[in-house]
Amino acid sequence: MSSAWRVTALHHVAMAHGDDAVCEDAMTMLLGAPTHAEHGPGFLERMYPVGGSYVQTLEADGDGLVQRFVDRRGPGLHHVAFTVDAIDAALADLEARGVALIDRHARTGGMGTRVAFLHPSATGGMLVELVEETGAGDG
Amino acid sequence: MSSAWRVTALHHVAMAHGDDAVCEDAMTMLLGAPTHAEHGPGFLERMYPVGGSYVQTLEADGDGLVQRFVDRRGPGLHHVAFTVDAIDAALADLEARGVALIDRHARTGGMGTRVAFLHPSATGGMLVELVEETGAGDG
Repeated sequence: MSSAWRVTALHHVAMAHGDDAVCEDAMTMLLGAPTHAEHGPGFLERMYPVGGSYVQTLEADGDGLVQRFVDRRGPGLHHVAFTVDAIDAALADLEARGVALIDRHARTGGMGTRVAFLHPSATGGMLVELVEETGAGDG
Repeated sequence: MSSAWRVTALHHVAMAHGDDAVCEDAMTMLLGAPTHAEHGPGFLERMYPVGGSYVQTLEADGDGLVQRFVDRRGPGLHHVAFTVDAIDAALADLEARGVALIDRHARTGGMGTRVAFLHPSATGGMLVELVEETGAGDG
């Protein structure tokens, strides 16, 4: 790990589904009601706080990455997101190390965060998101 | 949620793989070295602390559930585990609600914990583990 940035927390773990109320009902039973919801391209995202982290549910509501994931793999775990203290430094460092990135530059994520995805090949199969909290969101 | 038990934290998120060093190397780069490892039936489990949670890697090293998962789905996210304050009460309550359980009774998990899995149908596709920490482990 570079000294210029570090992972500080497990921000969220995300589950993708179609329009199955079973997932949302189960998360509400286990974790309580979601505290945040917003639309992304082709999906509705809900955030369920648990300890200092979240479960994020991604409900496909149109064409897009979430629907394609569900079509290909079925509903289930989609990605894990780590909080980093300096996402620009992290991405520059990872790129210099030859780590495969989907996003070479951070973009706006849910709750006002800045986010970027590593390519699943970087971890041997797990999709990892980096999140930098900006204080702009409600989470 | 019943008043007799509650989820208190996101204990870990688990990734399954065959014998691919890419996963372990990537987790070590992102999170630091694992602080715990132990063998289960057909797998080697490693725990990487991140914030107050862990990433758990499950490396198949023989026949068993992990190898069958990797054969069927490829390497990737396997399950998410929630810490509960009273696992016996949780399982009794969930069974009374008709929630599909793999384990009706808690059994011994890694690091001296007591664990039980819900059936993926209970959440519409995500495998959820409940964990009660006993203070017996090193984590």
